[in-house]
Amino acid sequence: MTHTPLLLPDDEYNRALVAHVHPPDWVNPTPSGRYNVVVIGAGTAGLVTAVGAASLGAKVAIVERHLMGGDCLNFGCVPSKALLSSAKDAVAGGSIEFTDAMARMRRLRARIARHDAAARFRGLGIDVFLGQARFTGADTIDVDGQTLRFSRAVIATGARAAVPDIPGLSTAGYVTNETVFSLTQLPRRLLVLGGGPIGCELAQAFQRLGSQVTIIIRDTRLMPREDRDAAAIVQQSLRREGVTLAFGATISRVEQRPSGDRVIVAEVDGRMQEIAGDELLIATGRAPNVEGIDLAAAGVASTRSGVTVDDHLRTSNRRIFAAGDVCSPYKFTHAADAMARVVLQNALFLGRKRASALVIPWATFTSPEVAHVGISGADAAKRDDVVTLTQLFSDVDRAVLDGESEGFARVHVEATSGRILGATMVASHAGDMIGEIALAMTAGVKLPAIAGTIHPYPTRSEAWKKLGDQWNRRRLTPRVHRLFTTWLRWQR
Amino acid sequence: MTHTPLLLPDDEYNRALVAHVHPPDWVNPTPSGRYNVVVIGAGTAGLVTAVGAASLGAKVAIVERHLMGGDCLNFGCVPSKALLSSAKDAVAGGSIEFTDAMARMRRLRARIARHDAAARFRGLGIDVFLGQARFTGADTIDVDGQTLRFSRAVIATGARAAVPDIPGLSTAGYVTNETVFSLTQLPRRLLVLGGGPIGCELAQAFQRLGSQVTIIIRDTRLMPREDRDAAAIVQQSLRREGVTLAFGATISRVEQRPSGDRVIVAEVDGRMQEIAGDELLIATGRAPNVEGIDLAAAGVASTRSGVTVDDHLRTSNRRIFAAGDVCSPYKFTHAADAMARVVLQNALFLGRKRASALVIPWATFTSPEVAHVGISGADAAKRDDVVTLTQLFSDVDRAVLDGESEGFARVHVEATSGRILGATMVASHAGDMIGEIALAMTAGVKLPAIAGTIHPYPTRSEAWKKLGDQWNRRRLTPRVHRLFTTWLRWQR
Repeated sequence: MTHTPLLLPDDEYNRALVAHVHPPDWVNPTPSGRYNVVVIGAGTAGLVTAVGAASLGAKVAIVERHLMGGDCLNFGCVPSKALLSSAKDAVAGGSIEFTDAMARMRRLRARIARHDAAARFRGLGIDVFLGQARFTGADTIDVDGQTLRFSRAVIATGARAAVPDIPGLSTAGYVTNETVFSLTQLPRRLLVLGGGPIGCELAQAFQRLGSQVTIIIRDTRLMPREDRDAAAIVQQSLRREGVTLAFGATISRVEQRPSGDRVIVAEVDGRMQEIAGDELLIATGRAPNVEGIDLAAAGVASTRSGVTVDDHLRTSNRRIFAAGDVCSPYKFTHAADAMARVVLQNALFLGRKRASALVIPWATFTSPEVAHVGISGADAAKRDDVVTLTQLFSDVDRAVLDGESEGFARVHVEATSGRILGATMVASHAGDMIGEIALAMTAGVKLPAIAGTIHPYPTRSEAWKKLGDQWNRRRLTPRVHRLFTTWLRWQR
Repeated sequence: MTHTPLLLPDDEYNRALVAHVHPPDWVNPTPSGRYNVVVIGAGTAGLVTAVGAASLGAKVAIVERHLMGGDCLNFGCVPSKALLSSAKDAVAGGSIEFTDAMARMRRLRARIARHDAAARFRGLGIDVFLGQARFTGADTIDVDGQTLRFSRAVIATGARAAVPDIPGLSTAGYVTNETVFSLTQLPRRLLVLGGGPIGCELAQAFQRLGSQVTIIIRDTRLMPREDRDAAAIVQQSLRREGVTLAFGATISRVEQRPSGDRVIVAEVDGRMQEIAGDELLIATGRAPNVEGIDLAAAGVASTRSGVTVDDHLRTSNRRIFAAGDVCSPYKFTHAADAMARVVLQNALFLGRKRASALVIPWATFTSPEVAHVGISGADAAKRDDVVTLTQLFSDVDRAVLDGESEGFARVHVEATSGRILGATMVASHAGDMIGEIALAMTAGVKLPAIAGTIHPYPTRSEAWKKLGDQWNRRRLTPRVHRLFTTWLRWQR
């Protein structure tokens, strides 16, 4: 049984983490009979599928080649939010040692990891196989020489950092989200390639912990998938904290100097520049993990964006489904969770649930946070039947009182009906407040109902209600106003 | 024209505040003809009524005897949350000077006060009268010798701190929420009488700013109107920060010693004690402002709890309505706002809106915050048809990562239908997250729909979804489970 080597450094916390999720003396079970479902990959999508199926009485196997818990637990949301939380304290309270912040992160990760431990899932009646899965036919999978037969399989192998093809990069060396959390020393100067959510979050965290951070991005703005005004606020916030932003950069090569410096040679603003750093973080996107599992043997089609699925998350092999980062443009833990639930129903219970019906919010956990759900501002702007309303936090008392008045809340609304099509919020803990709009969109609650909902004063969530009030005021047309005035004159 | 003397001290910020809300060279207008509505009191309820009526074309007058903006702006939510925000920074970042925190509070209050300035409402076409209003008949009000005739009147005179009848108290001297924000020096030892929301919030703020605070309360717990478990967490948090809690206290008298000390002589735990402090804050409840406006002259009935209203917020004089703290047990700014909207419709447009139909959430802005909506835990426990579900934040990853895992979210649900009857959350910014449940309750969205709503990971708002998941798991009865198992065996 050969495993991919574990990337975590050999310290106390990581030994605890690995022992939790992936015991070193693990022995795979012997498969018996046909499984209702074999799940490949024990990240969020895989674990939710496996646990859900097992709890409903299915015979389930799950195969993991690396660490139980996947990216989210080991190299994603969990360590990054732990670090961001320390970094926030660093801003508020002065200096926090990098090594302390990293130790805290690893301690918390180890604590949360218990939920995802291999032994726990075995305890739930799931056959857990640690090793590399490989399709050997339309309904069989090989794991280290053992054959698993399945009625249904679910590919949930996730994604990894996509490393761009830049001359010199692999020689110079770099970290990704998988290795950055293993750094033992704070880089004095950190270069971040990419200005998406991962790049922005880690840039802010490292800057706050004491690095001098430069973000290098091909685009002319940060967070290209977000509302332009939202991204502008994050941009301003990063700049104010001292992060250097190099927009519109075309990188020609990366060099490692004898001094140890990594140097990015790039054209920025039409001028060749050398940007030097002690460490280089690649955060230019995600690549789906479709290699090594022999999709062809099972007749599963895939492209560069991952496993090809229909709206029911079924692949080109009708026995096989996919969920999570390996098949979705929405590479979020909560989206993986939701897709797993769709797969459970469709794969095991003749369901016809559609992934396209999912309302998927997301958040970037910078300070301030940016949360979004539904259609984008750019799409809303193109449509005549959509009204966009904005509430600035400079007019929301609680934000003013907390000294955080620069964000906003924005909704895109169907003009005729008041149906909410999308929303963006920029505020500290916006991620906690987007749930209200996600609920409204999912349950078909329209904007006037949010105006009719009492929100406690003084809170930031009042911004949603104020948008509802804006909507209601739009309905007070001059004609209606004349009617009211006439009535009131008559009543006087 | 005589006004109640202004309580704010004569410093730069307060002069700015007063100039904003209550210009010293103000001249009352001359009333002409009959008003659609005369509003008494320019706090939240009064201002929302007046602005709403005026914007619909009504002829409106508003009368204020003290400061435009009422308690919320001048002595309530606004200054207290400004101070709490500074106090939070003090915990995170070390020392913050009391005078700086107070100066910041007054500056922010002055900034927000612009919205409530007398001149602004005049600009909206409202006749603003500064002075004491007094009913002189069923449809007339006197203000400093001028007579205002009305088709409808709205009493929105609010409430003030109720000062208990304790021997020696008035001689010893004390502050209330009206005067505490005018303190120029941090009391070394602060005694707080009362453990409701105002008492708890200010106790925590002053302790964090450097006072040694003791809360003295007759009850055996803090926040007697809140969920017992929620109150226990706040209690623990206050204790941990060094606040002394004296429960079950029967106060016999208050003394002022020659040293300047205020001493409370009380029986605590069956033993007479003397508790000494430098300042004494009274926060034992609110008394409605029903005096001085001659309710009897208009035939308006009132009791010790305030102006008596029916469910349509109409008083015993059918031309006269009431809204806000003067008539409601829900003494919150947002409740006053909502009641004003009910009154607008019922008083001016033959509406039949019911105050009892309002879903009123509230929050106490301690750290952690406690937010609540709907039926109480005590009421839920008495009912056989209600299921109570709890989600601890120790199992919500974001709370763990932020080092804030001691709170919880709790819902009370109608057992047959999944209809949400009430909820409590204890978490930092719980007040922002209760809006989602307030929306669900207002719009008739049931708990399964919250389970079906994707919430971004990792956020605290996931707690609501996890409660929905708990609800759904309850529906997986052994019978249903057997059905699934049989189906899956057959499918294998």
